[in-house]
Amino acid sequence: MKKVSLKDIATEAGVSTALVSYVLTNKEKEARIGKEMAEKIREIARKLNYQPNHIARSLKSGRSYTIGLIVADISNPFFGNIARTIEDEAKRNNYTVIFGSSDENVDKSRDLISVLLNRQVDGLIITPTEGSEQQIAQLKTMNVPFVLIDRYFPEIPVSYITINNYQSAYDAVSHLIKMGKKQIGMVAYKTSLQHINERKRGYHEALRDHDLLPKNSLLKLARYAHLKEDLKTAIDQLRNAKKPADALFFATNTLAIEGLKYINTLGIRVPEDLAIVTFDEGEALDLFYSPVTFVRQPIMDMGKAAVRVLLDQIIAAKKETAVICMDTELVIRKSCGNH
Amino acid sequence: MKKVSLKDIATEAGVSTALVSYVLTNKEKEARIGKEMAEKIREIARKLNYQPNHIARSLKSGRSYTIGLIVADISNPFFGNIARTIEDEAKRNNYTVIFGSSDENVDKSRDLISVLLNRQVDGLIITPTEGSEQQIAQLKTMNVPFVLIDRYFPEIPVSYITINNYQSAYDAVSHLIKMGKKQIGMVAYKTSLQHINERKRGYHEALRDHDLLPKNSLLKLARYAHLKEDLKTAIDQLRNAKKPADALFFATNTLAIEGLKYINTLGIRVPEDLAIVTFDEGEALDLFYSPVTFVRQPIMDMGKAAVRVLLDQIIAAKKETAVICMDTELVIRKSCGNH
Repeated sequence: MKKVSLKDIATEAGVSTALVSYVLTNKEKEARIGKEMAEKIREIARKLNYQPNHIARSLKSGRSYTIGLIVADISNPFFGNIARTIEDEAKRNNYTVIFGSSDENVDKSRDLISVLLNRQVDGLIITPTEGSEQQIAQLKTMNVPFVLIDRYFPEIPVSYITINNYQSAYDAVSHLIKMGKKQIGMVAYKTSLQHINERKRGYHEALRDHDLLPKNSLLKLARYAHLKEDLKTAIDQLRNAKKPADALFFATNTLAIEGLKYINTLGIRVPEDLAIVTFDEGEALDLFYSPVTFVRQPIMDMGKAAVRVLLDQIIAAKKETAVICMDTELVIRKSCGNH
Repeated sequence: MKKVSLKDIATEAGVSTALVSYVLTNKEKEARIGKEMAEKIREIARKLNYQPNHIARSLKSGRSYTIGLIVADISNPFFGNIARTIEDEAKRNNYTVIFGSSDENVDKSRDLISVLLNRQVDGLIITPTEGSEQQIAQLKTMNVPFVLIDRYFPEIPVSYITINNYQSAYDAVSHLIKMGKKQIGMVAYKTSLQHINERKRGYHEALRDHDLLPKNSLLKLARYAHLKEDLKTAIDQLRNAKKPADALFFATNTLAIEGLKYINTLGIRVPEDLAIVTFDEGEALDLFYSPVTFVRQPIMDMGKAAVRVLLDQIIAAKKETAVICMDTELVIRKSCGNH
């Protein structure tokens, strides 16, 4: 396949090669040549599947046209899907994404930030790990363009993309209450991360608003590094209580999937014996015999917003922090009973 | 947390700082100081969670201590798990991994190879996409250390890690035959990639060896970019045939999961109406009402081998190509009937 050149695009658009180059490499200045013409040129570039020459562009602009992405655990499909979305959106903007996975390890996170910065990325998108506040604060003082996604530190004023964790959890638990459930347990992570704590708060407030707050907490916390054993203990405790849990709210997809595997081994029937709601989607939750009701995060919109906010910093040199909080959707399926 | 220094390790081991540095940065020469002492020092470094200073090490050695990994689709948990394994193993060798996802797109693959090489990675691990033969051949002429994993091009003699695709498929289909199935369909990708074609060959030979080769092929091919629609057509054709398929062999986890979603909507019962076997594991296959029999790839061993072969090229400057072919395991569960 012949490589498409700027000249090919110029010929098709009926303009000069210089103008095409100007449009495709200087997005921020496109107002000068008219939006319509700029859009026409970009459209032709897309149609012809134009592949910009990164090195030539870099020499001209001093940019690397590369974004660094650090996710918390690449083996978790939630992050795999976020990575995929960010990559697609970056590609649309002629950026390449290179990424790393911190595996929820603060030292690895520090390593990755330094490795990616040394590799001259133009900016970073990060799902920060617990305890990485200092790293994030330092990035801010270094004037590195970056944006957080999924997680954030409320005390550090930087740009981030998140969802309304409190309201999403509140709505999920309220649905269980509406379905007549009285002993609603929750399994979350033992963590200081704000997004998980907001989900706990939503659970708590939904129970309180419906006068269902139990004397002994039905909220169980699992350690990330001891997930399976802590989940077993939690579920055993919830089911063997004097008033056994009749519903469970899982704070993440990983907790739900591991939890359901264990619930299956106990012969507990969903939803007859136990209703289930979880955060996050997953193939496993679709194929479960009782498809699981879940809080759908707008992953595609989140990824797009992260790239947009980052490119605003890189290209348009925006200095203001952008905090974007998105709404979720409760997708109701069989796992909470008939509705 | 105080950063652990070479001196801390030296004190604990009762040796000089120079010796510790020698061991931790010159693996290839460790024979000179004795294997036992080298192992002791590394053990202490691990225990104290020593984080080497990448920049200082790079200046000394001319290496970046970074590996580039290019997977075919990061949103596929199979590749997410490979990435995670490679990262863990690289970390054990004090290497950091940065990765990219080619999304089965040959242009994106070319971009990523050039971006990662420009970022001075010491070597590459690649799951090559269809049509990237030239890129791989070029890497070879450039003397870049690299190794392929999962996929390979038989006509290009480079190092790669693979599994015995032919035998694995042969065994999976033979199991269906042993369970009394007569009309065994297969759904694979329409691709020139050798690993998929070897799986088709295994299917074909297993049928032939048991005198079950049908006149009209029960082998259906789906296009990667039109997965869902092609799967529906394939399954409809297989089920509506004069002699409907009584068993299905899926060539990958993605095909199996999408296929099972569609099969569910048709009210087909597994294994009563249709027995199922697939390549690759997945949470969704575990949580399916009839847990799916699958070919387990030794992902962890594959990832470890890829890192080892690559580091042999980088550190020990090995020139011979290493081809490692691993065996798989057929994990038998409910989806093929009682056994």
